[in-house]
Amino acid sequence: MKKVLLINGPNLNMLGVREPGVYGTSSLSAIVQGLSELAEGLSVELESFQSNHEGEIIDKIHEAFGTKDGILINPGAFTHYSYAIRDALAAVQVPTVEVHLSNIHKREEFRHHSVIAPVVIGQICGLGPQGYELGLRALLSHM
Amino acid sequence: MKKVLLINGPNLNMLGVREPGVYGTSSLSAIVQGLSELAEGLSVELESFQSNHEGEIIDKIHEAFGTKDGILINPGAFTHYSYAIRDALAAVQVPTVEVHLSNIHKREEFRHHSVIAPVVIGQICGLGPQGYELGLRALLSHM
Amino acid sequence: MKKVLLINGPNLNMLGVREPGVYGTSSLSAIVQGLSELAEGLSVELESFQSNHEGEIIDKIHEAFGTKDGILINPGAFTHYSYAIRDALAAVQVPTVEVHLSNIHKREEFRHHSVIAPVVIGQICGLGPQGYELGLRALLSHM
Amino acid sequence: MKKVLLINGPNLNMLGVREPGVYGTSSLSAIVQGLSELAEGLSVELESFQSNHEGEIIDKIHEAFGTKDGILINPGAFTHYSYAIRDALAAVQVPTVEVHLSNIHKREEFRHHSVIAPVVIGQICGLGPQGYELGLRALLSHM
Amino acid sequence: MKKVLLINGPNLNMLGVREPGVYGTSSLSAIVQGLSELAEGLSVELESFQSNHEGEIIDKIHEAFGTKDGILINPGAFTHYSYAIRDALAAVQVPTVEVHLSNIHKREEFRHHSVIAPVVIGQICGLGPQGYELGLRALLSHM
Amino acid sequence: MKKVLLINGPNLNMLGVREPGVYGTSSLSAIVQGLSELAEGLSVELESFQSNHEGEIIDKIHEAFGTKDGILINPGAFTHYSYAIRDALAAVQVPTVEVHLSNIHKREEFRHHSVIAPVVIGQICGLGPQGYELGLRALLSHM
Amino acid sequence: MKKVLLINGPNLNMLGVREPGVYGTSSLSAIVQGLSELAEGLSVELESFQSNHEGEIIDKIHEAFGTKDGILINPGAFTHYSYAIRDALAAVQVPTVEVHLSNIHKREEFRHHSVIAPVVIGQICGLGPQGYELGLRALLSHM
Amino acid sequence: MKKVLLINGPNLNMLGVREPGVYGTSSLSAIVQGLSELAEGLSVELESFQSNHEGEIIDKIHEAFGTKDGILINPGAFTHYSYAIRDALAAVQVPTVEVHLSNIHKREEFRHHSVIAPVVIGQICGLGPQGYELGLRALLSHM
Amino acid sequence: MKKVLLINGPNLNMLGVREPGVYGTSSLSAIVQGLSELAEGLSVELESFQSNHEGEIIDKIHEAFGTKDGILINPGAFTHYSYAIRDALAAVQVPTVEVHLSNIHKREEFRHHSVIAPVVIGQICGLGPQGYELGLRALLSHM
Amino acid sequence: MKKVLLINGPNLNMLGVREPGVYGTSSLSAIVQGLSELAEGLSVELESFQSNHEGEIIDKIHEAFGTKDGILINPGAFTHYSYAIRDALAAVQVPTVEVHLSNIHKREEFRHHSVIAPVVIGQICGLGPQGYELGLRALLSHM
Amino acid sequence: MKKVLLINGPNLNMLGVREPGVYGTSSLSAIVQGLSELAEGLSVELESFQSNHEGEIIDKIHEAFGTKDGILINPGAFTHYSYAIRDALAAVQVPTVEVHLSNIHKREEFRHHSVIAPVVIGQICGLGPQGYELGLRALLSHM
Amino acid sequence: MKKVLLINGPNLNMLGVREPGVYGTSSLSAIVQGLSELAEGLSVELESFQSNHEGEIIDKIHEAFGTKDGILINPGAFTHYSYAIRDALAAVQVPTVEVHLSNIHKREEFRHHSVIAPVVIGQICGLGPQGYELGLRALLSHM
Repeated sequence: MKKVLLINGPNLNMLGVREPGVYGTSSLSAIVQGLSELAEGLSVELESFQSNHEGEIIDKIHEAFGTKDGILINPGAFTHYSYAIRDALAAVQVPTVEVHLSNIHKREEFRHHSVIAPVVIGQICGLGPQGYELGLRALLSHM
Repeated sequence: MKKVLLINGPNLNMLGVREPGVYGTSSLSAIVQGLSELAEGLSVELESFQSNHEGEIIDKIHEAFGTKDGILINPGAFTHYSYAIRDALAAVQVPTVEVHLSNIHKREEFRHHSVIAPVVIGQICGLGPQGYELGLRALLSHM
Repeated sequence: MKKVLLINGPNLNMLGVREPGVYGTSSLSAIVQGLSELAEGLSVELESFQSNHEGEIIDKIHEAFGTKDGILINPGAFTHYSYAIRDALAAVQVPTVEVHLSNIHKREEFRHHSVIAPVVIGQICGLGPQGYELGLRALLSHM
Repeated sequence: MKKVLLINGPNLNMLGVREPGVYGTSSLSAIVQGLSELAEGLSVELESFQSNHEGEIIDKIHEAFGTKDGILINPGAFTHYSYAIRDALAAVQVPTVEVHLSNIHKREEFRHHSVIAPVVIGQICGLGPQGYELGLRALLSHM
Repeated sequence: MKKVLLINGPNLNMLGVREPGVYGTSSLSAIVQGLSELAEGLSVELESFQSNHEGEIIDKIHEAFGTKDGILINPGAFTHYSYAIRDALAAVQVPTVEVHLSNIHKREEFRHHSVIAPVVIGQICGLGPQGYELGLRALLSHM
Repeated sequence: MKKVLLINGPNLNMLGVREPGVYGTSSLSAIVQGLSELAEGLSVELESFQSNHEGEIIDKIHEAFGTKDGILINPGAFTHYSYAIRDALAAVQVPTVEVHLSNIHKREEFRHHSVIAPVVIGQICGLGPQGYELGLRALLSHM
Repeated sequence: MKKVLLINGPNLNMLGVREPGVYGTSSLSAIVQGLSELAEGLSVELESFQSNHEGEIIDKIHEAFGTKDGILINPGAFTHYSYAIRDALAAVQVPTVEVHLSNIHKREEFRHHSVIAPVVIGQICGLGPQGYELGLRALLSHM
Repeated sequence: MKKVLLINGPNLNMLGVREPGVYGTSSLSAIVQGLSELAEGLSVELESFQSNHEGEIIDKIHEAFGTKDGILINPGAFTHYSYAIRDALAAVQVPTVEVHLSNIHKREEFRHHSVIAPVVIGQICGLGPQGYELGLRALLSHM
Repeated sequence: MKKVLLINGPNLNMLGVREPGVYGTSSLSAIVQGLSELAEGLSVELESFQSNHEGEIIDKIHEAFGTKDGILINPGAFTHYSYAIRDALAAVQVPTVEVHLSNIHKREEFRHHSVIAPVVIGQICGLGPQGYELGLRALLSHM
Repeated sequence: MKKVLLINGPNLNMLGVREPGVYGTSSLSAIVQGLSELAEGLSVELESFQSNHEGEIIDKIHEAFGTKDGILINPGAFTHYSYAIRDALAAVQVPTVEVHLSNIHKREEFRHHSVIAPVVIGQICGLGPQGYELGLRALLSHM
Repeated sequence: MKKVLLINGPNLNMLGVREPGVYGTSSLSAIVQGLSELAEGLSVELESFQSNHEGEIIDKIHEAFGTKDGILINPGAFTHYSYAIRDALAAVQVPTVEVHLSNIHKREEFRHHSVIAPVVIGQICGLGPQGYELGLRALLSHM
Repeated sequence: MKKVLLINGPNLNMLGVREPGVYGTSSLSAIVQGLSELAEGLSVELESFQSNHEGEIIDKIHEAFGTKDGILINPGAFTHYSYAIRDALAAVQVPTVEVHLSNIHKREEFRHHSVIAPVVIGQICGLGPQGYELGLRALLSHM
């Protein structure tokens, strides 16, 4: 059975509350719930982790070294400046897909650039909660 | 039955031949074949179109106005400079998903920026031929 | 009798349909119709041409060499990157006026810069369909 | 009867004298004279104002609030840096057309950018004194 | 008794009229009236000055040399380019606080940068008319 | 009774010790003490929080959702790169005022730009500890 | 017998007519004629192709895959923005030499940069029609 | 007898008072006095003009047209943004030398660039009041 | 006996595992072990600290205030954006040497710039684990 | 008999030794030998000069004034910053062709720009030692 | 008796020959001759030095340490990139005036910036050979 | 016995004299003397070379090819622009360590960037004369 780590970065715990016009009305737990069901159907063991702390996300990525087969990550605002998370992903070499709920290219200039993207397999953005499901499928195909 | 237009831009007819290290070894017809099967399974009528001519792609997008429910587009190198294709998509207002086979953020600087992305629903990159399938599923959910 | 070539670039065939909030509700044929009437009143022979193909626009500009007295051009999105159209206008040396329906300076950053403008007599923007009429009058005065 | 304010900015009082290769040989009074005749023919009351003082131009724009139906402005070199004039035009909300005698896109880099343009209806450049006449016609149509 | 000079730059005489969505509905005289009352309560002699002329503002700042204990300035659009006003403030060395009614960081790019700020004690923005009162209190504490 | 959360970011616990030439000689506890007294006088319940951890500040901002009426924040060096704190403030939509002890525009280039400022009501800088008091008054007026 | 494809991009059909001060007075057919004679002397089969259409040039490059031993290309204005032509050359991997009649480094800023150059063997510019002959010799040596 | 106009721009009336560490302790009148004596010795009629108003400086430059043989100008802070003064000097075509008391290249970044310099004969900076005398001698030689 | 704090930033706990082609095959504990032996030989008390949390590193630097004689820091990816760590070092004024295992100037563009370097004594990069030993020697000489 | 000066700049004496993957395995003397034979065949007197000293190259260029009919130069790394060599070539006005062994557009960013190119007839790059021969032929045609 | 070193940088030995439209028709020896006469009249011992070698100029500047009272330097093209000459002047601390024959601000972009200017007393440009005489007078006044 | 070449670039012969606040009071000969003693102790044959001439430094680096085991270089101001020295080091492939006495990151912007660093093993800066000793130790470990 494949093991996948789902990481949600800062402020994603506020989903549903936070700017629903931008991020939609689903709460994070609803999204994780849906994704877990899909994972089960695909015989994937999914661990979900959310943190607003860059350091905790790095620690979690390190834990995935040798214990997970894939990472699905929505780095939130860390997308745009956390070279430390980028280095963590590059260090553990666990196949990773990057997901964004909103279309980052339609928003403020600073959101157009991801410092994470160059070390992942691929990136999905703008497709809402479904983006997570597509990302999980992509990870599975890649593994 | 939903109708989706698949557009592949310049040089994608050379898939399998062109830099297989970057783009993989599947030919475009193989990818389209696979996608057509998925479409059929999802009760979607898929029309496939490839052109190396910016103008033909624009004409095709215009045709989709009022006749298609969604567009799946891999604009190839036009991604990075064809404001005319961007305007065409904005003009017809048909829901569109942008797909790239390779992870454009791992490659040359000029490939990091898409002039198309701000007018589409979302973007998928780096997931190879599967990216098309995920894009089709996303379009369906959106329609 | 003076001969003037009217060129409309990509997506202008979608006028009336395309983003009416930006481009207004007149169709291109209505605009051309109005301009033709003005041309007749001014004893000008007006030929109208629209294309979404950069190459066809270049071919058309070449044809104007030695056969037209002036060109009125709305290059659409080609305004911002078609150095090939710019070179075509510079090559034939037919007096040209550039027209834009919308005020390009109020819109996205990339629309603020015209690569065509340095090789034309003058530029009119933001004045809607009337801009074409003013451009025609300007061409006539210049000839 | 419609009332239009014509504003000419710094150094335009030197027309005919100043760099005739760039700006032509007509004096400002000749241009204003011609424009007044056109205005009369169009039943427009035209007030002409020229100043080399940014502050006086701002004061004049403020006076137009509630007393004029349109403004025709050639801001001269203020085009490129007077955010104060821009704010004045935005404050009074009187419909405005911006005119330049020369094609500013053919000249020094700093002349390519207008800080005024984003708050006006439209811009005309490169068409010499006729540009004023076209601008007046455009204002009338807009009112 | 401390003496404070209040300077309001270009277009601030249009407050209440000018873009009320951005600047609020209070007129400048209402703001000055309120500030004068506060000044009286704090035993400060307040002189109020508004001009749309950069030169008059510079002259006024020079007059403050040796006659005022503090300056409260809203430079309006001059904030973004008047190095001459900056030099005037640096020359007279009268303690100065810079105030903006709107949050300049939420608006157009060019408004994010103040050429005045490096020569003042501090800057207050986005707090509406109250910003003037807070600025006056800050000046008093500093003197 | 209104409830306000005071957040001080990294290194502000070192106030009085840290570069007194830049930040003054008051300790953070002295500043908080003074502000608490003012808050009491204004019938405001003030909670003070300092952390050098970006994640803890984000968590704290989330806690303020539905429990606080305003936030007064000095983000310290996070001002210049923490898009995650920016997103946290945007997510909870609690009215916020940003304060800096020093005039950030007089210092190193990188300190001139705040990524936080576009999502707050207003910003106060350069006014030392008094800036906190002015910020509290501003918050109260806004609530 | 070696087979070489000569491609001339937009506006090169206007040679002799177009800005002779920049491009010289030889017509394209004269240049091709001269080059054909040289090719014959070198036992090279030369096919000449000119188009103002980016898409046709891409199609032609694709045709060269497996049928030509070398490409000599003067991409005209496409030099500066056609990433699609660049990708076509990279896809077919036919050895290519890039030629420009004029010295592009002496002209407008935008002409100094070639997006084609990184995928060709070498580049020759400023040597007029002779540049084609030198390019052909270079191709031959490389094959 | 040659006629020279001396123009001093904003804040130069504060010389001796203003930042003596940068600009020295001589007052403007002392400098003008010294220069007048030199002018007399050189049989030059010197008119001295100082203003903090950009518009007045432009008016004065226009007056010099046909009445002065040379202009010596220290544009103060207008050096860095007054394209209107630049245009005035270009319009009247009176030979001009630009002078700065301080070495503008040792100071803030924004002072390194002069928008005036491209339209004058030459520039002298960093040589204090003597710079004016050298500038006068240079003007005389040029006339 | 001198006291030195060794700080290793994010992902350095993965040494030996992480990209050995870039960072070598020594584990962090091996490096610390070697450095401790050198420290002992030099009569230095060495405390070693590693964290992936920016906040913990800042807290640790604050603890060094008044308790350590020097800091040896490899800030990992925080090198490139943590202005908060920079401010912490500037606040405590403990002499610091910055070390990098790899030559940051040979790698991605973003690694060429250190926001930490301007507040330390000196920087050593590219010398592998020996860099730490050299840094310790340098700190000792400086103390 | 025509006289041509061949100049090779810094490090070209190391050819064959220096990075053969980039510059090939021919030594400079072999290249010069081959070129001399071609020169002889073309009745050209060729003088060969190599130096790692910018000043010596400038002196040599000056010597060519009035004594040589053409210069063939590979400026090596001076290509990218020696404005002094550029000025030397502009001063003597001897027709010059610039040659580079490698395709400078495929290499590091700093190698893409030549400060020499704007003052020469033309440039050849990427064609290895043959580039010198083509350059010599081009010079001859030009003379 | 004061001792002044005159340094002329690369290509200034070609004066009179080199682009007379830009640099005038005087030879360097004529300029030095004229300056020597002035020096004699002012009781200054003038040593003249010209070199096209950056290193020789640096050596010469070092020799001036303790032996000269002032340096007059026209660094030629080294003006724009020789940080080594800048450091030499900063090292010896001999008062220096920088001179340019032409107005560098009217020419190519790269000539607008001097890396030397921040370490000299002042700069004179555009005044031809007279600039040297004015520079000598300025040096004398400064000594 | 290992052989190491020590290269000191421009102005380092002025150490002790030159800006002692920046570079310290040790003369170069004192530094070389100290380093020679260390070298002897480490059984290294050290050759010391200083030059203000870029070309001589390049020649010296070429000499090191096949005769030296390592190079220790302080390129002085050449650090920031001598691509020719960079190429020389890359050509000879002798292991090299770059040393700077001062912390280049604390100084002017232009000193922050080294064009040499990408071709050396590592870089040491800010550690004064000890930096040379550390560099020598690093070279030895590397050999």
